[in-house]
Amino acid sequence: MTDKKRAVVVGAGYWGPNLARNFRASTDWELAGICDLDLDRARKVSDGVGGVPITSSLDEVLADPHVDAIAIATPARTHHPIVMAALDAGKHVMVEKPLADDRVRGRQMVDRANERGLVLMADHTYCYTPAVLKIRELIADGALGDILFVDSVRINLGLIQPDVDVFWDLAPHDLSIMDFVLPGGLAAASVSAHGSDPLGTGKSCVGYLAMPLECGAMAHVHVNWLSPTKIRQMVIGGTKRTLVWDDLNPQQRLSVYDRGVDIAAVSKSTTADTRDANISYRLGDTWSPALPEREALGGVVGEFAAAIREGRPARTDGESGLRVLSVLDAAQRSLGAGGAPAPLTLDIQPRRAAA
Amino acid sequence: MTDKKRAVVVGAGYWGPNLARNFRASTDWELAGICDLDLDRARKVSDGVGGVPITSSLDEVLADPHVDAIAIATPARTHHPIVMAALDAGKHVMVEKPLADDRVRGRQMVDRANERGLVLMADHTYCYTPAVLKIRELIADGALGDILFVDSVRINLGLIQPDVDVFWDLAPHDLSIMDFVLPGGLAAASVSAHGSDPLGTGKSCVGYLAMPLECGAMAHVHVNWLSPTKIRQMVIGGTKRTLVWDDLNPQQRLSVYDRGVDIAAVSKSTTADTRDANISYRLGDTWSPALPEREALGGVVGEFAAAIREGRPARTDGESGLRVLSVLDAAQRSLGAGGAPAPLTLDIQPRRAAA
Amino acid sequence: MTDKKRAVVVGAGYWGPNLARNFRASTDWELAGICDLDLDRARKVSDGVGGVPITSSLDEVLADPHVDAIAIATPARTHHPIVMAALDAGKHVMVEKPLADDRVRGRQMVDRANERGLVLMADHTYCYTPAVLKIRELIADGALGDILFVDSVRINLGLIQPDVDVFWDLAPHDLSIMDFVLPGGLAAASVSAHGSDPLGTGKSCVGYLAMPLECGAMAHVHVNWLSPTKIRQMVIGGTKRTLVWDDLNPQQRLSVYDRGVDIAAVSKSTTADTRDANISYRLGDTWSPALPEREALGGVVGEFAAAIREGRPARTDGESGLRVLSVLDAAQRSLGAGGAPAPLTLDIQPRRAAA
Amino acid sequence: MTDKKRAVVVGAGYWGPNLARNFRASTDWELAGICDLDLDRARKVSDGVGGVPITSSLDEVLADPHVDAIAIATPARTHHPIVMAALDAGKHVMVEKPLADDRVRGRQMVDRANERGLVLMADHTYCYTPAVLKIRELIADGALGDILFVDSVRINLGLIQPDVDVFWDLAPHDLSIMDFVLPGGLAAASVSAHGSDPLGTGKSCVGYLAMPLECGAMAHVHVNWLSPTKIRQMVIGGTKRTLVWDDLNPQQRLSVYDRGVDIAAVSKSTTADTRDANISYRLGDTWSPALPEREALGGVVGEFAAAIREGRPARTDGESGLRVLSVLDAAQRSLGAGGAPAPLTLDIQPRRAAA
Repeated sequence: MTDKKRAVVVGAGYWGPNLARNFRASTDWELAGICDLDLDRARKVSDGVGGVPITSSLDEVLADPHVDAIAIATPARTHHPIVMAALDAGKHVMVEKPLADDRVRGRQMVDRANERGLVLMADHTYCYTPAVLKIRELIADGALGDILFVDSVRINLGLIQPDVDVFWDLAPHDLSIMDFVLPGGLAAASVSAHGSDPLGTGKSCVGYLAMPLECGAMAHVHVNWLSPTKIRQMVIGGTKRTLVWDDLNPQQRLSVYDRGVDIAAVSKSTTADTRDANISYRLGDTWSPALPEREALGGVVGEFAAAIREGRPARTDGESGLRVLSVLDAAQRSLGAGGAPAPLTLDIQPRRAAA
Repeated sequence: MTDKKRAVVVGAGYWGPNLARNFRASTDWELAGICDLDLDRARKVSDGVGGVPITSSLDEVLADPHVDAIAIATPARTHHPIVMAALDAGKHVMVEKPLADDRVRGRQMVDRANERGLVLMADHTYCYTPAVLKIRELIADGALGDILFVDSVRINLGLIQPDVDVFWDLAPHDLSIMDFVLPGGLAAASVSAHGSDPLGTGKSCVGYLAMPLECGAMAHVHVNWLSPTKIRQMVIGGTKRTLVWDDLNPQQRLSVYDRGVDIAAVSKSTTADTRDANISYRLGDTWSPALPEREALGGVVGEFAAAIREGRPARTDGESGLRVLSVLDAAQRSLGAGGAPAPLTLDIQPRRAAA
Repeated sequence: MTDKKRAVVVGAGYWGPNLARNFRASTDWELAGICDLDLDRARKVSDGVGGVPITSSLDEVLADPHVDAIAIATPARTHHPIVMAALDAGKHVMVEKPLADDRVRGRQMVDRANERGLVLMADHTYCYTPAVLKIRELIADGALGDILFVDSVRINLGLIQPDVDVFWDLAPHDLSIMDFVLPGGLAAASVSAHGSDPLGTGKSCVGYLAMPLECGAMAHVHVNWLSPTKIRQMVIGGTKRTLVWDDLNPQQRLSVYDRGVDIAAVSKSTTADTRDANISYRLGDTWSPALPEREALGGVVGEFAAAIREGRPARTDGESGLRVLSVLDAAQRSLGAGGAPAPLTLDIQPRRAAA
Repeated sequence: MTDKKRAVVVGAGYWGPNLARNFRASTDWELAGICDLDLDRARKVSDGVGGVPITSSLDEVLADPHVDAIAIATPARTHHPIVMAALDAGKHVMVEKPLADDRVRGRQMVDRANERGLVLMADHTYCYTPAVLKIRELIADGALGDILFVDSVRINLGLIQPDVDVFWDLAPHDLSIMDFVLPGGLAAASVSAHGSDPLGTGKSCVGYLAMPLECGAMAHVHVNWLSPTKIRQMVIGGTKRTLVWDDLNPQQRLSVYDRGVDIAAVSKSTTADTRDANISYRLGDTWSPALPEREALGGVVGEFAAAIREGRPARTDGESGLRVLSVLDAAQRSLGAGGAPAPLTLDIQPRRAAA
């Protein structure tokens, strides 16, 4: 393909090698280089993909007219300056989660991309796993009915991060997935955050987020760095069916239960006895759809290319990154207020209806 | 044994037959009768234990000088009048959870029992299971170290109760267990409750309780009537070890993980880098203690007899029932305030140190 | 119902109370009495069902013209004399597994029942569980395609029986289920039995049965009294789908996997490369049918009544009990020959096609 | 280190890249080259480790005096000629399992290595996993007591191999592990093999091996290419404790159960009743040892170097490879005899006692 876009990966730390490998393997992209202040790290990543140019100068990358796009895998606090500079240089940008370390700065980045007519994509990798793509499809097809609740648990014995708490470290996964699969995206009315720092590390190591959604459902997230057992499970209850995603069970990641409570014509004016008569229980079959084995990041770089090519927002665009930031921002305010519900700041655009 | 106490079971519904069977089988007790307004139900329970006197008159039971104690398994809203009458008649009382349908009425019951010098015991059955007794013992022996967090999940496709919400229906289990096993009992500083009624039943069907404990740990409870899968799991994290209780895994109900994060001399003034240096991870063995097979309710009726005989409060006494009520009461206020943390009312006595 | 049949339960040990309870609860039957040499045991069982006549005299039971049928739950070595006497007295008979302690005696029992035109039913309780009924239905409907293999594991820390080895104790379950669900019944060509008595108890405590079936599939059974973990699992592989029955997973007892190997037009004359080209893998969905909650023994006594009423063999008739005995008999011969395959004795009737 | 040995990897197919990567990462070795008839494949493997010499000429490798050792990852049927040539050229040899495609040729290879005083090591990779090393240690320390039975299951939807059946493809794993962990090694008295080829592929796709061990225990292996679910589990029962290794459960790979049957002074002359009195059941704790995360193949290449350096046989030496072949050989004969037990050929040396 002669019209391959040329991308440079910025940041050669934990995630950079994965980005490099997937850009390299993509038929949409030519991997044009690796940029890191630490040239040794850059070289190592370059070696791992058979050798591409390396540099420690971001300016040089941005000045190169043959570079179409950059993919950023640096610490969150550096996202804003790098992204702004890249957009100003006319580059399309993909940026690791979280979009930024602050909602206002995230807003600026999204606005700038819009002004310039460039793609700003959030690398919400999980959204491109076969499991999450299937969940989105099932919900969009109405297989679950209206959503009643979403409960997500992501706990493990995790690294205590030096600069972020457990909410900023882990919850972006849950939040970006909810934003991706829910029909209205992550439309939380408010956020109550409950955190605990029992070891005195100066930041929450155990956290809970309760978010009444605008559709009336309750979303809840439990993140925990101190759990000896590893759980990554999301339950999405609907009026028709309920879905359980157990990401650590490769033999049955998704289960769709045709079980639930049916309530026919519930009227609040009816007496309790009458209401009971209208409640029935379905105990139907369980179904576990087959999922292809496919690396999610391959889908991410493919979507990045497609969004640029078609001049449209990516499926996980800057706005989705911003909705995640907005919840984290409200969570921080709720934490500061002892767990009282904090409203979301309202300058975020709701998610467009799925194409 | 000539000094057997004589007990009457009041209420022949769901739980009554279990009480009757266990009083009947106990060497401490003589089952003196079954009392229910519906004599047919009473007779059925009586038949199931080989035949004992039945009556529909509570007055008759309370007037009988040969009755030492009554065990109440009637709906929660009837607990207060029955218990008050029984105490006034000089009977010891055991009452099904929750102790009462209201904290103030519960307080009156406990005060009356104290005035009369009678045993008022909460039938917190779970506390007498081999698993919970072992958890209490492990914590008391210091096997877990200081408690860092408690996370309890009790979800299932459950009956939508006509008169109570999911908090009042299910959370008394989790709360009474926490009260029983934690060194300081259920000493919550405040309660944030988040509930959801997505089916429009007029009451919460999905609920979350976040409770910062006075010891600095975070306690959290997730109760849910709408889950297609059944989970009953409690994780108790400590500075030394972490315990996982999976009540639905009969082959390994309790697992004690010698895994965790150790932080040596964390000082908030140190830099992030220094602090990191002081964090280390233990990845030690897991141990699953053997548990005897024993019906919990047998332990309940035995404890009731022992408390009467020894003139001491039962291990799950009225005060423990009151602490549970107190959390439910605060949860209700929090729900009413849109999830804002509600303080606990402070007329509750803290749990006595374990004997 | 005026045409209820009258049954007496013979044997008040482990299984007798279950039989008594189910005959009592059945609308088809009147429980006419309990017979046991030990009158105390008989009385206890009678008390448990609200009181029915008891006796220690089998002769009395058989002489009673108002008794239509007897259900036998005595040790296997007593089945032959009791069944023969009962048939000679004109009673229909249901008998606990195994049908007899010896194939030849079992043959005599079946022949006698045929001569007398009476129902002789094997109480293969498992066959009437919702799971096994569903498996039978799925196979009969062709959902699995042709059967390729059956692998059954039934292991646990079990009681070392005083008079029988692990094959006679546990394998009748697996064998009777295979006989029930396989289209051709338990049509083994031969049996290889491998047993081990590592504790020197004088009998096999660990056992394996390998049985090439006449349809070309391999059936295998692993039974074990010495396993610390409990497994009850049967895998039935077919050309279309494969079914896994995990009896200890109440949340998902049956799973039907649309996964497998497809081989198109395999010809042994083709080269390896060509053959490879004809192998393809299906990785389709998994499906778990909902199962009703229902006590199997209720189905057993209902089938017993229906067979008598309709003058037809029971679905688990004497012949099916005999096919199980026949495999156990061959297994015993194989064990005696150091594991060499032993042919089945051929006076057994194949299973009739499912109605 | 100036005394690094120099190794060439022969065979750049499925396993070669792993060998190359581990030789490259080892401080004991210098990876001196990759040899494959297909130079493109060799180059790809070389690129993956940063570039080493490649060649398609084995003769060239063997003629190079600076090559100390070769590691062979070619198809089994080529092992014999390559190994014999390498030994004749004075090279130490490590060879992928199975050692050879035939017991007699394997014997020749081992004899030749002994004559030449060279190390011939079987790459029984599993034996160097943390789990298997721990099992070996536990058994050697007497934690399980005397071994009573070994039951291994290795089933999956697997590739139908063009040239070998399921026994030769999968059972070498189970057999080499048993050889490694059992005190007397794989000392089977005979082998009964039951195979099934229900799809008509010309080879067994489902297989069972029953092997009475000389110590009196029963060993059994179930291998299966047609199972929709994946199980890799080995149960090793002992007089003191029983171990379960579930290789697909990373959270608890090893469980040691202090549960079992104790038999005190069983005498076959005692009556059944007396014998019963001497049977007791232990229901003790379960313990799951922590295991390090470590790549097994790193241990393999380290052991290869140590054996050469110390002039001793490797822990998985040619003799262990030969014991595996010997069982496969007997299995083949048993299959040919319709499942009748086949004795092992007796020219194999028993395993030396663990150092």
